[in-house]
Amino acid sequence: MEFSSKIIEQAVDAFAQLPGVGKKTALRFVLHIIKQEKLEVDKLGLLIARLKTDLKFCSHCYNISENLICEICTNPLRDASLICVVQDYRDILAIEKTGLYKGHYHVLGGLISPMEGIGPSNLNIESLIEKLKSNTITEIILALNATMEGETTSFYIFRKIAPYSVKLSAIARGIAVGDELEYADEVTLGRSITNRIPFDSLLKK
Amino acid sequence: MEFSSKIIEQAVDAFAQLPGVGKKTALRFVLHIIKQEKLEVDKLGLLIARLKTDLKFCSHCYNISENLICEICTNPLRDASLICVVQDYRDILAIEKTGLYKGHYHVLGGLISPMEGIGPSNLNIESLIEKLKSNTITEIILALNATMEGETTSFYIFRKIAPYSVKLSAIARGIAVGDELEYADEVTLGRSITNRIPFDSLLKK
Repeated sequence: MEFSSKIIEQAVDAFAQLPGVGKKTALRFVLHIIKQEKLEVDKLGLLIARLKTDLKFCSHCYNISENLICEICTNPLRDASLICVVQDYRDILAIEKTGLYKGHYHVLGGLISPMEGIGPSNLNIESLIEKLKSNTITEIILALNATMEGETTSFYIFRKIAPYSVKLSAIARGIAVGDELEYADEVTLGRSITNRIPFDSLLKK
Repeated sequence: MEFSSKIIEQAVDAFAQLPGVGKKTALRFVLHIIKQEKLEVDKLGLLIARLKTDLKFCSHCYNISENLICEICTNPLRDASLICVVQDYRDILAIEKTGLYKGHYHVLGGLISPMEGIGPSNLNIESLIEKLKSNTITEIILALNATMEGETTSFYIFRKIAPYSVKLSAIARGIAVGDELEYADEVTLGRSITNRIPFDSLLKK
């Protein structure tokens, strides 16, 4: 696209770097911003800068945090012997929303994906293994996407963890609550039969 | 959504103001930015601020411009007696790309839409009529969307312009170049028959 102004061009290019944003969408953003009040626009610019200056990755679990160590890792009420391994910050939000998990997290920062050139060394896997050496961890829960990349990463971690005497579990795959069996795919339905659970464990919840 | 940090929350809310961006997409933007280099992020923040400080609306045609009057209005090679009325800046880009228009523009800044609460007074229509009073304009070309809002706005301008002795035309609606008749909708096909053009005018192009 050709623009009448260098500034528009540069701003469109900058917005087009955002995930899922092409040049046409970027231009829509730019035109929207030009029409906004200066105060609003300055606020957006300031917030973007603050994302970088005021936020860091927790040095312990790689969660996004305003402090060196995040609120979850510093919370004495949470069980530090339990580690839930997730892909990124959004998964922590999702799990926290359930209110059913009281352990710590470990954010990998992605999933193994040869297609995208992401290998184990690009992820926070070594630091997870390091944590096991202290012998204070009793269980690792893998909560990764049910995709090819998620399964590959889970299996990689499974092999890495094998030498240590720690319980390794994965979140249950199965029919989503509210879903009808008829419309479930075979793999999910198959897994939910194989990994069936005692009925009385459902009654307790 | 609940976030672990006020800054993330505010940034998500700010991004969610952009057109077509919901909270989930806004969070993706925020997480992407946190992972970027500080230099890149500062550049984006600066560009956003510059959109507001360095750009203005041309005082003559409401095009976006780095100067008080835009490059098109100041270009002596362009025909000032011809005004093409468009909805916004993107339409100017699209028409300029064809390289077939050498007149001036007039940006309305939107279309009449009772549903969205946009009336004629919210658009740059009065200033268009003002231009006619100088008697230097020979033709107004309406180049608005072929939608309900576009047609309504065209008709409103048509009535407003009626008292002045100026030629009023609209861009042709019809079968897009490369399209097959079979798949064209009835209204478009009907219009393209009603507004058929002498074949020899096609040969000249």
